[in-house]
Amino acid sequence: MSENSRAPRVLVLADQRPPGMDDVAAHAELVCIPEERLAVELPHADALLVWEFGTEALPAAWPAQGGPRWVHTASAGVDRLMFPALCDSDVLLTNSRGVFEQPIAEYVAGQIVALAKDFTGTYDRQQRRVWQHRVTQRVSGTRAVVVGGGPIGRAVVRTLRALGLRADLVGRTRRDDDPEVGTVHAFDELDTLLAVADWVVCAAPLTDQTEDMFDAAAFARMKRGARFLNVGRGPIVVEKDLLAALEEGQLGGAALDVFRQEPLPADSPMWDAPNLLVSPHMSADTDTWLEDLAEVFADNFARWRSGRPLRNVVDKKLGYVPVSAGAQTASQEGTR
Amino acid sequence: MSENSRAPRVLVLADQRPPGMDDVAAHAELVCIPEERLAVELPHADALLVWEFGTEALPAAWPAQGGPRWVHTASAGVDRLMFPALCDSDVLLTNSRGVFEQPIAEYVAGQIVALAKDFTGTYDRQQRRVWQHRVTQRVSGTRAVVVGGGPIGRAVVRTLRALGLRADLVGRTRRDDDPEVGTVHAFDELDTLLAVADWVVCAAPLTDQTEDMFDAAAFARMKRGARFLNVGRGPIVVEKDLLAALEEGQLGGAALDVFRQEPLPADSPMWDAPNLLVSPHMSADTDTWLEDLAEVFADNFARWRSGRPLRNVVDKKLGYVPVSAGAQTASQEGTR
Repeated sequence: MSENSRAPRVLVLADQRPPGMDDVAAHAELVCIPEERLAVELPHADALLVWEFGTEALPAAWPAQGGPRWVHTASAGVDRLMFPALCDSDVLLTNSRGVFEQPIAEYVAGQIVALAKDFTGTYDRQQRRVWQHRVTQRVSGTRAVVVGGGPIGRAVVRTLRALGLRADLVGRTRRDDDPEVGTVHAFDELDTLLAVADWVVCAAPLTDQTEDMFDAAAFARMKRGARFLNVGRGPIVVEKDLLAALEEGQLGGAALDVFRQEPLPADSPMWDAPNLLVSPHMSADTDTWLEDLAEVFADNFARWRSGRPLRNVVDKKLGYVPVSAGAQTASQEGTR
Repeated sequence: MSENSRAPRVLVLADQRPPGMDDVAAHAELVCIPEERLAVELPHADALLVWEFGTEALPAAWPAQGGPRWVHTASAGVDRLMFPALCDSDVLLTNSRGVFEQPIAEYVAGQIVALAKDFTGTYDRQQRRVWQHRVTQRVSGTRAVVVGGGPIGRAVVRTLRALGLRADLVGRTRRDDDPEVGTVHAFDELDTLLAVADWVVCAAPLTDQTEDMFDAAAFARMKRGARFLNVGRGPIVVEKDLLAALEEGQLGGAALDVFRQEPLPADSPMWDAPNLLVSPHMSADTDTWLEDLAEVFADNFARWRSGRPLRNVVDKKLGYVPVSAGAQTASQEGTR
């Protein structure tokens, strides 16, 4: 940008200006637009902030020529951005890794304790004013397998280990010397781990490899009575198979924060499946999340302006930010 | 016992023989009795295992002369055993420290996450099939004060720190070099700590010093919206003051596992107080607790038989097992 005195044009897909944008606005022409204007505005944008990250409108609106050189999404998952025109281009894609991991890990830890100690059973009895002592389970000493070698899976493993669980991480590639978690198991070791886990936590991104991976066969491989948690993406789970496993008692319980169809339709059988806790895709979302998301974007914008490597660059072949990836420098010459 | 070939007579206050008593029974005359037989049997007992630890019958049944030289209770709290005839005697009293700490710490951690992330609000909506995204709170980075310098308070502090909270421990005596938790604050520092805590956790034993300590004045000193948890004993809290603090919003929520009157009467206003989670004194009780309790007693019995120091000897002036206390040798010569 240094040789071009014109401020870059930064499109923000959002009805109103997000918080924490003052630094960006001081150095950019910041334009907030609704989905309907994407097709018109994208050809003239230097960068795009996908603030309303639930959008499905980008593939159709993406220009055949020109368009932003850098797209940043206010989400951890990038599956909605994995369309060919963007994937096959040299447009830099960054995400909001760093904002969601710890809240999600806390949610997982809390749901595991809630399931082990039957918090909802206690709450049901409270509403009926019934004092009924029961024995419940210790979580320390139990065993978890966490699927998804990215930062969310890693935060979950760290947190569960801190609570005294044995937690194994399954990622794309096996390694024995991971500085953060020690051993990372490969996907082809999952079946063995499923058979011994008390808790199976899905924290994986949605990719061709993970779609439908938790199906009847996977649930059948689990220890009888094991519990399943999903904080990854809904389509990783075959929901009818999950329901059957819960109904048969093969699964002892489940906690899902993501679903194939969101919002979960009112007539879905998931709402009252036995021992299934439904939460509306909110495990990552804290009362400081908007400020936290804005801060990640503002930091990357400052880097982009000055030609420094960006953070959280998505490997568009993998569909996520590799943990080992260093920051990458955006191609700046093409900005317009 | 070595000079006396007669097996010691061990009374067990329990309707039937607890699990895990084989080793004890091999070296003792093990007699399980109901409360009604205490007064008749106690004068002839060498040791007493208070397995049904909720009993209120001991003070009246305690013999004026003779009786057991050693009393062991299958509980952490010993308040029901703090009657003068036992306290003022040289009878050794031991408890079941070691069985309850970790489950209670897990319960506290789980309830903190549940309150921060409004698990019950989500569960309410699930029952009405309502998908309603909300932002909730991170627990990491928040601040807790844990009252009770014993092993339960310590386990709570360790567990909350592992989850990323700042957790301060308040005990009887200040020390700065505690090997387990670093600084232990004294009770006279509590007011200062209450003012900055997001979470106040009572894990104290019931003593003259702690009875009624959480009253209107204490709740008023807390940060507005702070949450209060009690896993200690019910009479430490002035329940009407707690209810008022919840109703006024001075307290943002509470989770109580213990109450002044247990079971909590069906007409108690606690059942439906705003943002109050009621659980029926079960935070410590896991599906392995009976075996775990039996193991503690069996270990102490083996020590007692062989004249070795017992574990978990209660300081009857303090009303709990001092953390710094080494094991103590029971007076054996008096056994009969």
